[in-house]
Parts: sequence; C-alpha cells; structure tokens
Amino acid sequence: MRPSGRTAQQIRPVTITRNYTLHAEGSVLIEFGDTKVLCNASVVKGVPRFLKGKGQGWITAEYGMLPRATHTRSDREAARGKQGGRTMEIQRLIGRSLRSCVDLNALGEYSITIDCDVIQADGGTRTASITGACVALVDALNYMRSNGMVKTNPLKGMVAAISVGMYQGNAVADLDYPEDSKAETDMNVVMTEDGKLIEVQGTAEGEAFSFEEMNEMLVLARNAIRELVDAQKAALN
Amino acid sequence: MRPSGRTAQQIRPVTITRNYTLHAEGSVLIEFGDTKVLCNASVVKGVPRFLKGKGQGWITAEYGMLPRATHTRSDREAARGKQGGRTMEIQRLIGRSLRSCVDLNALGEYSITIDCDVIQADGGTRTASITGACVALVDALNYMRSNGMVKTNPLKGMVAAISVGMYQGNAVADLDYPEDSKAETDMNVVMTEDGKLIEVQGTAEGEAFSFEEMNEMLVLARNAIRELVDAQKAALN
Amino acid sequence: MRPSGRTAQQIRPVTITRNYTLHAEGSVLIEFGDTKVLCNASVVKGVPRFLKGKGQGWITAEYGMLPRATHTRSDREAARGKQGGRTMEIQRLIGRSLRSCVDLNALGEYSITIDCDVIQADGGTRTASITGACVALVDALNYMRSNGMVKTNPLKGMVAAISVGMYQGNAVADLDYPEDSKAETDMNVVMTEDGKLIEVQGTAEGEAFSFEEMNEMLVLARNAIRELVDAQKAALN
Amino acid sequence: MRPSGRTAQQIRPVTITRNYTLHAEGSVLIEFGDTKVLCNASVVKGVPRFLKGKGQGWITAEYGMLPRATHTRSDREAARGKQGGRTMEIQRLIGRSLRSCVDLNALGEYSITIDCDVIQADGGTRTASITGACVALVDALNYMRSNGMVKTNPLKGMVAAISVGMYQGNAVADLDYPEDSKAETDMNVVMTEDGKLIEVQGTAEGEAFSFEEMNEMLVLARNAIRELVDAQKAALN
Amino acid sequence: MRPSGRTAQQIRPVTITRNYTLHAEGSVLIEFGDTKVLCNASVVKGVPRFLKGKGQGWITAEYGMLPRATHTRSDREAARGKQGGRTMEIQRLIGRSLRSCVDLNALGEYSITIDCDVIQADGGTRTASITGACVALVDALNYMRSNGMVKTNPLKGMVAAISVGMYQGNAVADLDYPEDSKAETDMNVVMTEDGKLIEVQGTAEGEAFSFEEMNEMLVLARNAIRELVDAQKAALN
Amino acid sequence: MRPSGRTAQQIRPVTITRNYTLHAEGSVLIEFGDTKVLCNASVVKGVPRFLKGKGQGWITAEYGMLPRATHTRSDREAARGKQGGRTMEIQRLIGRSLRSCVDLNALGEYSITIDCDVIQADGGTRTASITGACVALVDALNYMRSNGMVKTNPLKGMVAAISVGMYQGNAVADLDYPEDSKAETDMNVVMTEDGKLIEVQGTAEGEAFSFEEMNEMLVLARNAIRELVDAQKAALN
Repeated sequence: MRPSGRTAQQIRPVTITRNYTLHAEGSVLIEFGDTKVLCNASVVKGVPRFLKGKGQGWITAEYGMLPRATHTRSDREAARGKQGGRTMEIQRLIGRSLRSCVDLNALGEYSITIDCDVIQADGGTRTASITGACVALVDALNYMRSNGMVKTNPLKGMVAAISVGMYQGNAVADLDYPEDSKAETDMNVVMTEDGKLIEVQGTAEGEAFSFEEMNEMLVLARNAIRELVDAQKAALN
Repeated sequence: MRPSGRTAQQIRPVTITRNYTLHAEGSVLIEFGDTKVLCNASVVKGVPRFLKGKGQGWITAEYGMLPRATHTRSDREAARGKQGGRTMEIQRLIGRSLRSCVDLNALGEYSITIDCDVIQADGGTRTASITGACVALVDALNYMRSNGMVKTNPLKGMVAAISVGMYQGNAVADLDYPEDSKAETDMNVVMTEDGKLIEVQGTAEGEAFSFEEMNEMLVLARNAIRELVDAQKAALN
Repeated sequence: MRPSGRTAQQIRPVTITRNYTLHAEGSVLIEFGDTKVLCNASVVKGVPRFLKGKGQGWITAEYGMLPRATHTRSDREAARGKQGGRTMEIQRLIGRSLRSCVDLNALGEYSITIDCDVIQADGGTRTASITGACVALVDALNYMRSNGMVKTNPLKGMVAAISVGMYQGNAVADLDYPEDSKAETDMNVVMTEDGKLIEVQGTAEGEAFSFEEMNEMLVLARNAIRELVDAQKAALN
Repeated sequence: MRPSGRTAQQIRPVTITRNYTLHAEGSVLIEFGDTKVLCNASVVKGVPRFLKGKGQGWITAEYGMLPRATHTRSDREAARGKQGGRTMEIQRLIGRSLRSCVDLNALGEYSITIDCDVIQADGGTRTASITGACVALVDALNYMRSNGMVKTNPLKGMVAAISVGMYQGNAVADLDYPEDSKAETDMNVVMTEDGKLIEVQGTAEGEAFSFEEMNEMLVLARNAIRELVDAQKAALN
Repeated sequence: MRPSGRTAQQIRPVTITRNYTLHAEGSVLIEFGDTKVLCNASVVKGVPRFLKGKGQGWITAEYGMLPRATHTRSDREAARGKQGGRTMEIQRLIGRSLRSCVDLNALGEYSITIDCDVIQADGGTRTASITGACVALVDALNYMRSNGMVKTNPLKGMVAAISVGMYQGNAVADLDYPEDSKAETDMNVVMTEDGKLIEVQGTAEGEAFSFEEMNEMLVLARNAIRELVDAQKAALN
Repeated sequence: MRPSGRTAQQIRPVTITRNYTLHAEGSVLIEFGDTKVLCNASVVKGVPRFLKGKGQGWITAEYGMLPRATHTRSDREAARGKQGGRTMEIQRLIGRSLRSCVDLNALGEYSITIDCDVIQADGGTRTASITGACVALVDALNYMRSNGMVKTNPLKGMVAAISVGMYQGNAVADLDYPEDSKAETDMNVVMTEDGKLIEVQGTAEGEAFSFEEMNEMLVLARNAIRELVDAQKAALN
C-alpha cells in the first residue's frame, strides 16, 4: 500500500500551464501532484565558444530549488557560492535529455537555455523538470519559427521522464517524497514519445535490485511516460 | 501621462495570496501588477553566533531573481558563484525593514529567514518583497504562537514599502519597468503602518532632485503605503 | 550633548590633501576628524563591454577598509574570497554619485576608477569617500585635459556627502563612531554644489522617524555639504 | 568490428596492484588497458556532522583527473577554483557504490575517504575507479580489524563496475576512448558480486535505445563484472 | 651607475613612524624612499585550531597592495575573489620572519596578526614590510606587557630585511622599481639584529648568478640590515 | 647521524622514467627515494594574453599533491575551491626555474605547461619536481623539433634542484621527511648544469643560520646537483 493510496502504476495528477510568466519565449509551470516546477526557455543568438562556426545550435539547462521548496529550508546556492553536486547532476541530465529531441543543425546558431526552478518539492523534481521543459522548448521553437529564426521545425519528437522505484518490495511509478525517502531503489527514466530510452539512472538506496525488478520498473515507466506525453500534447493543443 | 495610463498617485493592483506553498511557516505570493514575488518565511531554533546567549531572536532575508524573471535572461547567481551587489543591497534592506517591526527580545532564541524570490519582474521587486515578506512574517509568528514557541506576539506593527519617483518632471507612485528605466529619480520608501519612516533610499538617475520634489514623492509614498497596509490587513483577515 | 562636544550642526575638521600618492592621476587623502580615506583616481583608455561603441565614458568606484582601520580587526576581504554586502553597497553608491557629476559623453571612451581605501575609521567613511573622490576625480579630469584626452571639461559640478542622524532625539550632522553606533536614525546625503539631492539613504536603526525629523536632518545636511564644497574648492585652488 | 579488435564481450586486460603507495591504509592502482586510476583509502576517527552520535560510520569518495591524463590537457580544477559537474557526478557515484557494500553500523564512528585519481585516461575511468576503490576499501577495513578499530568485518561483499554501450549497432563491453567518443549509447553498471544491480546509468548520446538493447547491454555487464570480481579476489589473495 | 645616483651599498632614506593609526596595538608607517607600507599589529586572545591547548601563541601576517600603489592600477584582490600567488608568497614570508624573532611559548595563547598594506610601491615592498612589521610587533608586545597579557618579553631580538641584486653586473643594495624591473638577480634577505640569516630568497631573473656574486650580495645585505636595525631601534626610543 | 643512515652529502637513489604516460608531449616519473612526482609537459599553440604578438613563447608550471601522498590525508584543493599558498609558491618556483633554461624567443608563440603531481611524498617534492620537469621539458622540445614547430633547439642547458639543510648542527643534502620536519634550516637550491645559481630559498625554521653554514649548504647543493644532472642526461640518452 502506497502512502498516497495510489496503485503501483498510478501517477499523480499532472497539470501543465503554458505562458506562466510573461517574458520567456517558452514558460511552463508543471505540477506532478505537490511538486511544482517552473520551466522557462530563453532563446539567444549565438552559441558557446566550443561550437562557434559549426553552423549548429545548442540547448542547455539550469536547475535550482527555491530554499524553502522543501520541508526544511536548505541553503541558497547563490549565497553559498556554488551549486551542489546534486544540482549539477540534475541540470546536466535535463540538458542531455532535451538535446536528444532536437536536431541541433536545424536549430542553427542559436542557444536555448531552459531554467527549471522548483517552487515546491514533493519528490520527482527532476522528472517533472524534463517533462515540463520539453513543453517550454516546443513553445520556444514555435516562437523561433514565427519570427523566422528557423526554417524547419528542429523538434524530433517529445521526451518525458518519470521516476519509478522499488517500495516495500513492489515496483511503483512516480514516487512522492514519503516514498522516495524510503524506497529501496529509485530509478529515473527518460523516454521519447515512441517509447525508446534516452536515459536510465537507477540507484539502489538500500538493497541491490535484480534484473527482473529492473524490468518491472521499466514497464511502469513506459506506461507512465505514455500518459505524460499525452498530457504534454494536450497542453500544446 | 504614465505609460500604463495610471494617475500619478495610483498604484498597480495588489494581490496577496497566503499559504502559496506547503512547507514554509509563512508563504505569500505578492503581486504588484506584473511583478510577482514569492515570500517564504522559515523558522528555526537558534540564532547566529554573534547573538548566542543574548536571549533574543534574529530575522534575516535573502533575495533572488529567477533568471528569466526579466525581459532578457540574466545569469543565475548560483552558477556565477556569487550574489551580485544589487542582490546584496536588496536583501540587506528587506532584513533591516523586517527587524524594525518585531521585538527581537520577545522573539526569543529563534531565527526567521524570509526568502524573497522574484518569479516575474516589472519594476518594484524590492518594495513588493518587503510588503509581502511582512505578511509571511506575520503568518510565521502566528505559527510560533500556536506552537508555543513564543508567549506574546513579537510584532510591533506592519511595515510596507513602495517605490516613488520623478518621471517626466512629475512625482509618481509605484513605478513599473517602463517608468523605472526612464525615471529621473527613483526612491524606495519603507514605512510603518502609523506613517513613520523606516528606510528612504532615493537616487537621482539622471537629474538631481530638489527638497520640494523629495517631499512630493514622500507624500505619494505615504498614501500608497496606507493602501498597502490595508491590503496586508485584508489578506490577514 | 554630543560625545565630541560638537554642536548639532557642527561637522568635524575636514582636511583634503591632494597628490597624496605618486602614481594615480588623482590622489587625495581626505580626513573627517579621525576618519581617513585615501581616494585614488585611475584613468584608462577603453570602456566596459556594455558601453563599447557608444562613444561615452564610464566612472566606477571600489571601496575597501584596511583590516585594522576599525577598533577590532575585521577579516581581509581578499583573504575571505569575497567582498561583503556593505562594501558592495558603498562602492555602488560612490560610483553612482560620481557619475552624476560628469558628462559621460564629453568624457569619451575612457574609464575612470576611483579606489577609496579607508586607512582609519571613525564613522562616516562612505561620505568622506564621496567627498574626497570628487576631488580626485577633478584632478584626473584635469590630467586628461592637459594630456589632450578630452577636449572640454566633462565636470558638471562638485558633489559632496555627509551623514546626518537622530541622536538622543536630536538631529545632528556628521556622526562619528560613538554616535553612529547609538543613533536612532542614520542618513547619508549626497548633494550637488548647488544644493540638489543626488542620493538620500536614511535608515531607522532603532526608532522609525517622522517626516519632520527627516526635514530637520536634510537641512543640516545641506549646510554641511555647503561647507564641504567650500573645502573641496579651497583644496583645488 | 571494434577499433581494438576485441570481441563484443571482451574486456581489456585488468591489472590490480595493491600497496601502490606507502601512506594510505588501502592503496590500489587499477588498470583497465590504458586507463590507470590510483585509489587510496584513508581512515579517520569521527564522522561528518550529520551523522554525529548515531553510532555509524561513513564512506565517501573524491575523484580527480590529472590535467594531462587525457589526449589534450584539461584545466586543473584546483586552479579553476571548482570541481566540474562531471567530477561531482562521478565522485557521488563512487561513494554511493561503496557505501552499498559496507554495513555502516558495523563500521562504527569512523570515516573512510577513497580518493580516485586518474593517472591516465582511455575510457571507463569511473568504472575502473569503483572496481579499484572496492579493493582499497577492503585493505582499509582489514587494517582497521588488525588495529582493533572494528570488531567484525563490515564488508557485505565486493562491488565492481563496467561500462557497456551500443557501438555501431552492437552491444559491447568495456568501451575504450575511441569507442566511447562515438558510441550511440553509453551505460555504466555497478553490481554486487552476486549479480545484483547497485547502479545503472545509461545515456543515449546519439540514438535512443530500446528495451532489448538495454537487456543485451546488461547481460554483457553481468559477465564482465563476474570477471572483475574474480580479478579483485585474486588480487586480495 | 644606478638610476637614483646612489652608490652600490647605499640604501634609500628610511622613515619609521609609530602610532600611525589609532586603533591597532602596534601601528607603523615605514618608508624606504617612495615605498610606503602601513604595518598594523592586532592582538587577539586565542590561537588557531592547530595550536589549541599547546600553551603557545601564534604570529601571522597578511599583505595587500592598494590597487593604485603601482604605476598602473592592478585589480583589487577582494574584487577578484582571491589573493594572487605573489601576495601569498609574501605574506607567508613576513609571517615566518616575525615568528623567528619571538618566543611563542612566552607569548602564551594569544595571536598577533600583522597587516602590511602597501600605500605606495617603488620596489622592496616585502622587505619594507618585514622591517616595519617588526617595529609594530614590538609595540604590540609592549602593549601586552603593560596590560598584563604576558609576563616576560617574548621578543628574542629585532629582524629586518633588505633586497639586494645584480644590476648591470654589479651587486647593489635596496633596489628601487627602475632597478628591480631590470636586475639580473633579485635577492631578499632577512636577518636578525646579530647578523644571522632568517631567510634568503634569490632569483635569477635573466642570468644565473655565481657563488661569488651571491656572497657579494650577502655582504651588502648584512651592512644594510645593520642600518635598518639602527633605524628600528632609534624609532623605538 | 641521519635517520636514513646516509652520509651528509649523500642523496637518495634517483630514478627517472621517461614516457610514463601516453598522451603528454613529455612525461616523466621522477623518484628521489620514496618521493615520487609525475611531471607531464603539454605543448599548445599560442601564448597568454600579456605576451600576444611579441613573437616569444611561454613556459609555466602547475603543482599538485594527491590528497593521500602524505602521512595523513590533506584536503583536495579542487574540493576546497582554491590552491593554498604553499602550492602557489611551489608552482611559481618551478615555472621560473624552467623558463631560465629556455630561450623563449627561439620557442616562438607556443606555451608549454608542466604539471607536477606528487604521487607520494617523503620530503623534497619541489626539488624533485624541478629536476623531473626539466627532463619532461626536453622531451617536449624534442617533440616540437620533430614536428617542425621550432627550428632550433630553444634549450640553453639543464637545470636541477636539491634541498639542503642544517640538521642537528650539520649541513646535509636531500632531506627526507623525517629530517625536513626537524631541520633547523631548509634551503632549496636550483642550479644550471654549469654550476650557476637560478634560485636559492633558505629558511631558518628554528635557529638563524650563519654565512658559513650557508656556504657549507651551497657546496653540498652544488655536488648534489652535479649528480642530478648526470642522472638527467643518462635518462635522456
């Protein structure tokens, strides 16, 4: 029995609000239950130095957690003077996931930065970030097309992400904080809309897991991501 | 004529939403028109080292701007590895303003941190922060009373803040971004609910200003702050 | 009664020594009683990136306090690896004040940096810095004219600054450290030589202050600044 | 056909040299072909603050790459003033993997830090690090037993790690640099000696991968890790 | 022929002004010609962590150069966020030199920090710093005796320092900037008042130097330091 | 009697292994007894900004100590976020020493960085670094000649370095850690192959030293360096 009363495969209610703020070329508030992440996509002319002159674009992501997004306040990274290892790990994951769904050559020499800022955390902030960031990215690409910055649509397809895990011996989808803090295994899965894998990051927090358990979790992830892609597409229409 | 069509003394619509997030002891979203700031108050046992053993409490503030709260994206301070001078200036101002409305001895050995994070900026983020933070602080103090952490109410009264300025030769209240970026003088005023001054910070951006102009601006500020305190009190009832 | 025995409007003896060091284009030691600040102006060709190609110049300031300028030693900011919030606040204030007295277009694509380093502190270091920096700036501008770097004098007029405050219920001018550490209100005022306001920064340290008290303080400031401008001009002749 | 001429399941020659340096309680040089990592385990009394008084121990890891371990020199992180995101990601992974094979309660209030420093890199530095670090950890635990610091052996079993990937459409084990830089998918797998999963981190660099490909890679990983555990045990006897 | 017209063994006029600032327990302005360094000694109760409980004291030094102490402005280290290698090298040298002339056990559990801040530079700032710091240290130790903080005088004797070098083939003493920037060899020598060596740091900037040249330079240094110790003692009487 | 049983002039066995790693243009492992330092030379096109357009090259060095190269683990500088004063001092010394043996004009607009990383420390790491780095530099210069990057050999001759000191009243050469930690004086000497001095850095750790002791130490250094240069040349043939 899950603390939330959900079934093993049941994800939390997902809400995707586009145009959440005024200024960004794509701005999405995504909610997975009580987890709320603001995903803002910013388009700028030009690319980082290592890509200069190659005729291709770049997509990167930054992640932050408001200090009191969590049960107890955590230090503000700007005040501490550096981003922690967890933050870096997550923003690198978001960036790689988004680059996998865009044809960077078709993007041309533009850079898109997706800022994922967690307003409220209840588990699954990185998977909510990826899922919301993809919608913000689509809005930013549409903005670029409307403004003649790209000729063709650089998007190869949607990506979404979900956390799955082993909780009290059972595979479950979309762990919330009470589950996440006690799960034996926690696995984040990023997939394309046609069900292929972009990233799998599974960690045994307590107990090592078997191949069978891994497969159970992946099946849950595939089903959940199908639902998330539906929610993304519904929001975009 | 102001770009927004407002009269000289007219402030933008103010909205104060309490309990905006789940975890903080006080959580307020304050909106001054398109400026939106999330103010979260966190209570912890204990005080900073310089106050240890003095039997009094402490209140401090931190301020941040989401990278795309503004028209063009600004660098994330956590990624740059330090908070800028403007950020430090603002968070020191918020902290001082809030400490002025609380009896720190009555607070006892507790620390309250108010995080003011700008979700969307359209001028006046520091004055919105102070005005919203005061409401979040009241909620945090109420939480402390309900939980027996303080015996008496340490609050001495409400504080609120407004920006006023000289725009095209006229004193105006509550400058939005189009005005702020062109004003000859910009002045931030923090006042108590009974009309006394806590902070005055006036800056001639272009043209020096006279004592008469200063007084005109202060009168506008006093009226505006009266409205803001009414809005704070309405939100708290 | 003031600890120093001064009358309410009486400022400390002011000494301005030009050409205090050898290398700077303008080098001034300013003393407000026991407060001593070395103000060095450095001229370099070129402007910061954000001004490139606009045909105008730039003036900026940096502020530092020698570790043992104060009663007890404070940490060296270079060793701690960052400038504190107070330092940033002050150097931003000095920079803004100086820019207000120069026609940046007439300056052409040159940058002037004014380093204000406090050798000894006894209250009022920021106002002494501004007052001395303005003299160093004039020397640097004269150097530029003599060397054909500018054609016309970019100086619009002198600026000077004084702290005023409410001490034991009375408005007083030019607070020294014993007053500053106990004042109910502390206000720094920057004015042009013709008596207009550039900056007003008033802070209620203990008690909120009234409009009347504010006006009393401003009148004291105006008189004090008149004296300071006289001292500046005497030093320059 | 692999650039090295190896078969799909063939890993590079593995060499494990114990007591490589004099001072560390466990010191292992591990070589996966041309990849060479020095793994030093240091034992100290006491635990980090967040574990104080809980009666358990802690194991953590740090990872570094000598600047010229790679084809072209990379900046020294100590000189740049911060560890990069990749470094943080890797050292967190090593730490988690090692903690999973030790009973931290049996360890008592001691901390073990494993420093993994890459002397020469040719792909697979993080998996070589984990595999070598586990041997260094065993030596450190033996040192602790010989010196009466622990009563029972806190080791639950060996862990080892391997990279697998999709290279030119085929699953291959133990990617070297020429493969790694071109692989479609790169997956790092950490397993216990009895074939259960500790960590799986798979990333589609170019092409998304299917569940079937994932399973093929996992089977290769399981076989490789069996060989690695044999090599660890041989080295320890 | 030296640019200054001095003879090979002739040092610049040395001026030592005690009680230069108000607050420090020892405060000395030392001038070697146009080189001016302010040396402030601060006494605090307690010692650094690595000395706790050993019953001995500690002496350390910090060095800084005002940004415009030099011909062209150098960046402020506090603004750059770190002290440069040269600064660290110099402050370590000053600290070691001063510790060598004090009996740290007799000092008891007190720390003395000597801040050497260069107001104006014309070569020889580190040797002027050591020579001036020693006088400031004596004043601080006297302050401690007067206040009953130490029972016996912990001072073992004076130390002073001079730079010597090979300039156009000749050994010369007390290099000023025009010499220093062109010298083939530059050597800083720290000696006790009875003519023994504390530190020798010789560097061939252009040409390697012979043992004979080294000895010639050391003889010049010994004579110069005799004069400096006389100046120190004269200042202290 | 020395702890190692060596005679006063006897240095430890020296081993120089070239081509120690694969990628660097020069890669040398040097051992002075139990002290082991890896010296990697990296050649890149271009020079630092301050040399642009002058037609000359640059040589610089970086130094690091693996955290457990020492008896007890020291913090990783990359994790602490800055290089310590000792590290900076040493890497500046290595860089200056190497530049003294190369004609930078003949080098042309190339930069060579020598990374000296201490694998195991037992005293004398900086002198081993210089001695090994010179061999790595020669290999890098040979690589440049073979690849047509330089026309003539920019090498002016070999340099090597040794530590000497006063230990229990006697001058000794090549101090190991047990001696180094107790020596009264420690002196590092860098010399050219024809017996001239490049750097002398002598420090009285406890007792000041006389001119006679200094000369005794220098004679030991000269003899030791002659042996080291022989070892360098043997390794290069």
